[in-house]
Amino acid sequence: MSSNQPPATGKTRLVRAAGALSKPKASSAEAIAYQALENLAREVALISSTASSLGWDQETYMPPLAVEYRAGQLSYLSAKAHGLFTGKSFRTLLDRAQSERLTPTQSANLAEWQRELDRASKIPTNLVAEESEVTSRAKHAWSEAKNRSDFAQFAPHLAEIVRIARKKAALWGFADEPYDALLAGYERGASARDITGLFDYLKPRVSQIAKQAVERSQSLPKNLLRGRYPLEKQQQLNREIADSIGFDFQAGRIDTTAHPFCTTLGPRDIRLTTRYDLSDFTSSLFGVLHEAGHGLYEQGLPASDFGLPSGSAVSLGIHESQSRLWENHVGRSTSFWERWFPRAVELFPNLRKILLSDFLQHLHRAAFSFIRVEADEATYDLHIFLRFDIERRLLNGNLEMHQVPDAWNAASEELFGKVPPNDAQGCLQDIHWSMGGLGYFPTYTLGNLNAAQLFQKANSQRVVTSAIRRADHQPLLHWLRENVHSFGASRSPKEIIANATGRPTDPAPYLNHLRKRFTR
Amino acid sequence: MSSNQPPATGKTRLVRAAGALSKPKASSAEAIAYQALENLAREVALISSTASSLGWDQETYMPPLAVEYRAGQLSYLSAKAHGLFTGKSFRTLLDRAQSERLTPTQSANLAEWQRELDRASKIPTNLVAEESEVTSRAKHAWSEAKNRSDFAQFAPHLAEIVRIARKKAALWGFADEPYDALLAGYERGASARDITGLFDYLKPRVSQIAKQAVERSQSLPKNLLRGRYPLEKQQQLNREIADSIGFDFQAGRIDTTAHPFCTTLGPRDIRLTTRYDLSDFTSSLFGVLHEAGHGLYEQGLPASDFGLPSGSAVSLGIHESQSRLWENHVGRSTSFWERWFPRAVELFPNLRKILLSDFLQHLHRAAFSFIRVEADEATYDLHIFLRFDIERRLLNGNLEMHQVPDAWNAASEELFGKVPPNDAQGCLQDIHWSMGGLGYFPTYTLGNLNAAQLFQKANSQRVVTSAIRRADHQPLLHWLRENVHSFGASRSPKEIIANATGRPTDPAPYLNHLRKRFTR
Repeated sequence: MSSNQPPATGKTRLVRAAGALSKPKASSAEAIAYQALENLAREVALISSTASSLGWDQETYMPPLAVEYRAGQLSYLSAKAHGLFTGKSFRTLLDRAQSERLTPTQSANLAEWQRELDRASKIPTNLVAEESEVTSRAKHAWSEAKNRSDFAQFAPHLAEIVRIARKKAALWGFADEPYDALLAGYERGASARDITGLFDYLKPRVSQIAKQAVERSQSLPKNLLRGRYPLEKQQQLNREIADSIGFDFQAGRIDTTAHPFCTTLGPRDIRLTTRYDLSDFTSSLFGVLHEAGHGLYEQGLPASDFGLPSGSAVSLGIHESQSRLWENHVGRSTSFWERWFPRAVELFPNLRKILLSDFLQHLHRAAFSFIRVEADEATYDLHIFLRFDIERRLLNGNLEMHQVPDAWNAASEELFGKVPPNDAQGCLQDIHWSMGGLGYFPTYTLGNLNAAQLFQKANSQRVVTSAIRRADHQPLLHWLRENVHSFGASRSPKEIIANATGRPTDPAPYLNHLRKRFTR
Repeated sequence: MSSNQPPATGKTRLVRAAGALSKPKASSAEAIAYQALENLAREVALISSTASSLGWDQETYMPPLAVEYRAGQLSYLSAKAHGLFTGKSFRTLLDRAQSERLTPTQSANLAEWQRELDRASKIPTNLVAEESEVTSRAKHAWSEAKNRSDFAQFAPHLAEIVRIARKKAALWGFADEPYDALLAGYERGASARDITGLFDYLKPRVSQIAKQAVERSQSLPKNLLRGRYPLEKQQQLNREIADSIGFDFQAGRIDTTAHPFCTTLGPRDIRLTTRYDLSDFTSSLFGVLHEAGHGLYEQGLPASDFGLPSGSAVSLGIHESQSRLWENHVGRSTSFWERWFPRAVELFPNLRKILLSDFLQHLHRAAFSFIRVEADEATYDLHIFLRFDIERRLLNGNLEMHQVPDAWNAASEELFGKVPPNDAQGCLQDIHWSMGGLGYFPTYTLGNLNAAQLFQKANSQRVVTSAIRRADHQPLLHWLRENVHSFGASRSPKEIIANATGRPTDPAPYLNHLRKRFTR
């Protein structure tokens, strides 16, 4: 096909791909169908991770005019992966494997595949296509509506999205309410009832802490750090810090994008991104710490099980627990900055005039922001409570579409003591709904709770505590590897938390952490 | 499949691929089979260009430990594309389309597919697998042998490669000798007999020019440009120049690799690379000019025919003509540097002490190098003559494997007046043979000839000449677009050259160019 495909040019023109798919691990010899399932799942993962590579490139380096063709490639790969996973071979093998003698991990993988396939099978192809069309139009409309700050323009699209979400929830089935069925796609084993109970408990407590934190912050200078922070030096510091907490640059990298993210291109290929504010080095750094938290989780999953549930992240709530743990519990702690502030001062001379104690106070400044993605640790969950309540009412049919801005503004008044000046800074701020991402937001707060609970438990080990005091995070990472990462999705999020900490997800460690940091 | 695939994390976690494959252009309504062929060919291109994206990433940004999994992805995609192109559907449609009413371009595409499929079909799967194994071992052995400068270590592998190449040539069939069949894979319509005639004519003439050029250069200072050329400023100049000759950065970019190359990731996504020498800015710049020449060709192919022969580069000889044209005829010319030298002086103050005339003389310095990739314009083809002769004798069974180093050294003595100190700088220097790339080298010299002939013809248009004098290359690019790029592979290389210049490939313009530049 030399001239059908344009030949690559230059010195590497002759370089051809070589190598083969990784082989499944040998196990119980009689598990023939199970092994074939593993092969298929690995093939699905190979295609999906190829799409992730294209997606990463699209966000980082792709030239603008390439976007249309790239969209076609991504949609093709996504359809191929989906077709393979939901195809007849996979189903047949899944049935056959049920009667095979399997190891506990193999059984867990089988159960996960069954669960995912059940979910995928319940949604007819025409509904998938309809959703894709609706969200494609909705994303466009949302962007326009946000620019004009005009919710009415987005409302009919959101109505369509809610209608489809309810339809999907009905097809999937749920115990109490439609929200359960949607949430299950992000957080296995979670329910709207549990979340409601949790949030009802958290809301007055977090609100009170937030209020105190905001009040206390009012006397602090806003622009303490303002100065010149050259890009290369920020990159240098970020890299040193990511390396020191254990992020493996032989199996990952950091690039620059408008919105920070972490994505997995292969079992040893985890890519982080951040963005740079040349007048404040902490913006890129906390982006890196957050995404490196996700990245450490991905690097800690069993590489040999890449593409199997046992080699995959278990849920968004657990994923977010890892990012929050490194960003907030490690990255905003005194011992961390006792180690790193002197290095930052070396790189950024204008920090010389700042005391470490003032710097730490600055990191713990709190303010009521209208925008979730700009919110600080003390006020972040309030944004989640607000969204969860509105989403749930929409899905239960207890809120009319036209009432959304008023509901949003009323909740904003209640939680932040002020109303956003317009819908762009209110109910139009997040992209999630326009993409059909209903049932997603609570996983952020679950992540906060899990982070605190895991960190507290890890930190109760003497070897972890004493190392952290020296800003040595190896023992902490080791503990997380052993108690969280290594399981992949072979246990449920609840099982992982209970097994690691001795009890189910519990608000106490998180509230203690917030109180200690923001009210003392 | 949320937990089967690790969820992407961070702010873009919800971003999903959207869009669809580009639709084939409407044409003769009755060409049903032909249209289906186009769809299949576009699907093959979609998969192959996905592999190109992964290949680009592997060379530019991929972390080292990702290499094994990436190799598996590349080999999977390559097998998928090959399977689709050589599968039953494609064959059946190809037969059916023969009797359909087609446009001339459609007929040309059909003929190209037929030719490529015939070639692909004649090689049995076990020979493909054997070659893949042999070259995989050979690449490793070559690298080791080169490190130790020990041809004997590589000889048995090269013998295997020659054996397989002869087998393939026999299966493909040839008029005169096995070389023809291999060459046809890179340069449709070329033959060893033509190349031999051409090289016999060129050899004494190029040798004489080279000798004069080398002698004349001996009085020139070697290190005229030596200085400090900061990376960012080199990148700035390279970008300005690539932009000024017409490379579209909305549909392409420049990155850094150990060996410069140009690769196509999509119809509007052409990626160049170069490498930087911080003590000499011309190294990265001429890398960019060469690769941008390839890139301008790729950007000039009909984007709507991406993946069809009519939207693909026609041959390596034509591809190389574009890179050489921009690198040597444009990039080493007086009018070009009258425009760009002052800008270079602005960016690199240590050039201030250098006269433009001295700079140009420096660019035209010639020396006999043992290493092809380091050879200058005056001596480059000598390296090709040498390789062609040895390859041909090997394939015809007129040279024993153990005689290769002696044959190489004797030719080196004859052409350069000196013998390489060891095999690493002699017959082990190129990676091509270890990858099975026999029959490839002559396309470099064909590129040189075509470049000169096309440039001479374009330059005979008054509008092109007068613009070039002002370093305005728009009319030149326009001429190349119209006379070369726009045809893709819907005409043969020979047809393109004859149509563009009024006569077949002819050594005169090239020899005139070399004489003018190196002997006056």
